[in-house]
Amino acid sequence: MQTSLEDKYAHQIIPFAWPKGYSSDGVHAGLREDRNDMGWIFSEVPAQAAGTYTTNQFQAAPTKLTKNTINQDHKLQAVIMNSANANSCTGKQGDEDALTSQKLVADKLNIDANLVGVASTGIIGEMLPMDIIKKGISELKLTDNKEVTTAILTTDKHAKTISVQLDIDGTPVTISGFCKGSGMIHPKMATMLGFVVTDAKVQDGLLQEMLSKEVDTTFNQITVDGDTSTNDMVVTMANGLANNAEITKSSSDYSNFVEAFHAVLAELAKDIASDGEGATKLVEVNVKNAANHDDAQKVSKAIVGSNLVKSAIFGEDPNWGRIVAAIGQTDAKVDIDHTSIWLNKLPLVENSHGAGFDEAEMKNALSSNKITILVDLNSGSSEGQAWGCDLTYNYVRINASYSS
Amino acid sequence: MQTSLEDKYAHQIIPFAWPKGYSSDGVHAGLREDRNDMGWIFSEVPAQAAGTYTTNQFQAAPTKLTKNTINQDHKLQAVIMNSANANSCTGKQGDEDALTSQKLVADKLNIDANLVGVASTGIIGEMLPMDIIKKGISELKLTDNKEVTTAILTTDKHAKTISVQLDIDGTPVTISGFCKGSGMIHPKMATMLGFVVTDAKVQDGLLQEMLSKEVDTTFNQITVDGDTSTNDMVVTMANGLANNAEITKSSSDYSNFVEAFHAVLAELAKDIASDGEGATKLVEVNVKNAANHDDAQKVSKAIVGSNLVKSAIFGEDPNWGRIVAAIGQTDAKVDIDHTSIWLNKLPLVENSHGAGFDEAEMKNALSSNKITILVDLNSGSSEGQAWGCDLTYNYVRINASYSS
Repeated sequence: MQTSLEDKYAHQIIPFAWPKGYSSDGVHAGLREDRNDMGWIFSEVPAQAAGTYTTNQFQAAPTKLTKNTINQDHKLQAVIMNSANANSCTGKQGDEDALTSQKLVADKLNIDANLVGVASTGIIGEMLPMDIIKKGISELKLTDNKEVTTAILTTDKHAKTISVQLDIDGTPVTISGFCKGSGMIHPKMATMLGFVVTDAKVQDGLLQEMLSKEVDTTFNQITVDGDTSTNDMVVTMANGLANNAEITKSSSDYSNFVEAFHAVLAELAKDIASDGEGATKLVEVNVKNAANHDDAQKVSKAIVGSNLVKSAIFGEDPNWGRIVAAIGQTDAKVDIDHTSIWLNKLPLVENSHGAGFDEAEMKNALSSNKITILVDLNSGSSEGQAWGCDLTYNYVRINASYSS
Repeated sequence: MQTSLEDKYAHQIIPFAWPKGYSSDGVHAGLREDRNDMGWIFSEVPAQAAGTYTTNQFQAAPTKLTKNTINQDHKLQAVIMNSANANSCTGKQGDEDALTSQKLVADKLNIDANLVGVASTGIIGEMLPMDIIKKGISELKLTDNKEVTTAILTTDKHAKTISVQLDIDGTPVTISGFCKGSGMIHPKMATMLGFVVTDAKVQDGLLQEMLSKEVDTTFNQITVDGDTSTNDMVVTMANGLANNAEITKSSSDYSNFVEAFHAVLAELAKDIASDGEGATKLVEVNVKNAANHDDAQKVSKAIVGSNLVKSAIFGEDPNWGRIVAAIGQTDAKVDIDHTSIWLNKLPLVENSHGAGFDEAEMKNALSSNKITILVDLNSGSSEGQAWGCDLTYNYVRINASYSS
């Protein structure tokens, strides 16, 4: 019996909610003029924690601190966050400021400083105004509100959140994620501030393994502008308060949990791509029949990363030569005479030639706000996926005047 | 005694002219509405020839043909060129059309087909209209005019030409180059159609070695949009009609000739960068104190390739965090606490911190139409250079509506 697409998934998306034992808050401390700019999340009990971090050599102070903190014991109980200032390229003073924030939060929550993560996003190279940071921390409360999801935004147009629920051995478990994206998005390990919290009980050490693996096919497969930030970080916490049978690699529900976890990361990643700076369209590229998974990932990311492809999609122009050129720039194995491409299911390129499509039909497909490109490399049986957005006047406008 | 900067060079730039024995022409054959679209160059005698070609896996038919032709004997006597149609992704018919063009030119000039190069640029994926190509070839004459330099342009705003002259052992020798650039410019071996012709007598085999080496630090160090074309090609011809003492690696004038040859390639490359699609500013990045030459090349190219840096320069915004982020994205050795950056000679970053520059002075520097960024990596003693342009509304406008 065939299962429908929906039946395939053991999890379901629910309205955004905190899993058991998590509370949170967001406030306007004064780093920005009139929007939330500081927030935190807190777990009643120490949670297993995992993180992936930017590979940019100039790693920001909070990113380094959170990495070191998680690596000690893979435990976190709280994360403090701010937007408007990245605390990056701020030298020793920046390191001290991140440490001070960590300690202030630990004191206020009466927990060990080694259980506090610190995350910042915003302009690079300016010192954190610590009086404002202190004021913000003093104002944060433990509530059920979702204000933290807006407190981390910069040029994002909307908060990016998702909650999924699934049963682990009969016990309901929730995984909730939120993130910010928008510009300087071309993650090499993780993107600019993503957080995933769950009440699932997960075997010690397994969370990091899962995160590192799933980030590769989700956050690491999006690009807005090819620029990798100094502050990229995805942090995940699992506090076990759902009281499910512990998830191990041999549990029967292991693959269901990984699938749900993947779905949370993938939805957040896609949301970042579609809300890329100035974007009007989400672009999804699926590659099939690649020689191996790496090739499929590489080709899909090259296409969503091409300025020419991105400009053509903004202009709703079926200029497929640019897609072919982007494929050919990679070192992936390509059958150069038998590569085919579909755009929103319409044949665009057949065996490396124009597919002789109907211009009006194609124009109509291109007018959609979601463009799905499927590439058949005819070189194997592997698949890969990547997400990006179009390149618009607004991207240039936004980035021609960010710091001043 | 100190020599002045001018005295350092054994060559001088002269008004654009063909070296001895070369003739040329350009015509409006009808591939485009009202501008020159076909042209050729011809040498009275077979010339030593060398080429570098795109590394894009989808190599266009004329690019493959010219590569094969040059590789047979490293000799050319003529090159036929067209714009408006790249003859790329055109399958067997495209290969046949390139061969037909080669043969028609050989017949008309009464030379061997193996002495004719073919170069095309323009839209990918459309068949060459051979009736127009035939008409164009039939109309081309052997003249002293420079029409071929405009016949190869696409979205370029102006023809890119340069001639330098130098003495080889007392005999004047001329090197003249022309090219087209504008978009899909991120050469991996060579850029979209560059031609350098000289009347110098050069030892057999030496021209290819020189070209391959000098292209690496000139054409391969420019980027407009990070996209590598399917048609990139630089071809150079040396017909020996200057009657100089043959240039060999051991001639006393060898380094002078290489320097002049490098200058021609570098000037053309810079001209492509400053005339990048939509560009308002030329951006030159110089990297010093790198661990090795590769690192210096990589870092300089990463900076000119960053959309965020390019947008900031368009907006005349001294957002140096983006330059730092671009440097950190590379795997080059970087002293992350002691990296310094200057913009048009004003200190911008000192030891990885903001240099505390005067905003008004910096704004004034940024208003220039040439932005020179100097980066000190404090990791060695090697240097490198790259060129690019700003990212503007017009880049998006031009590329949102190219094919339609």
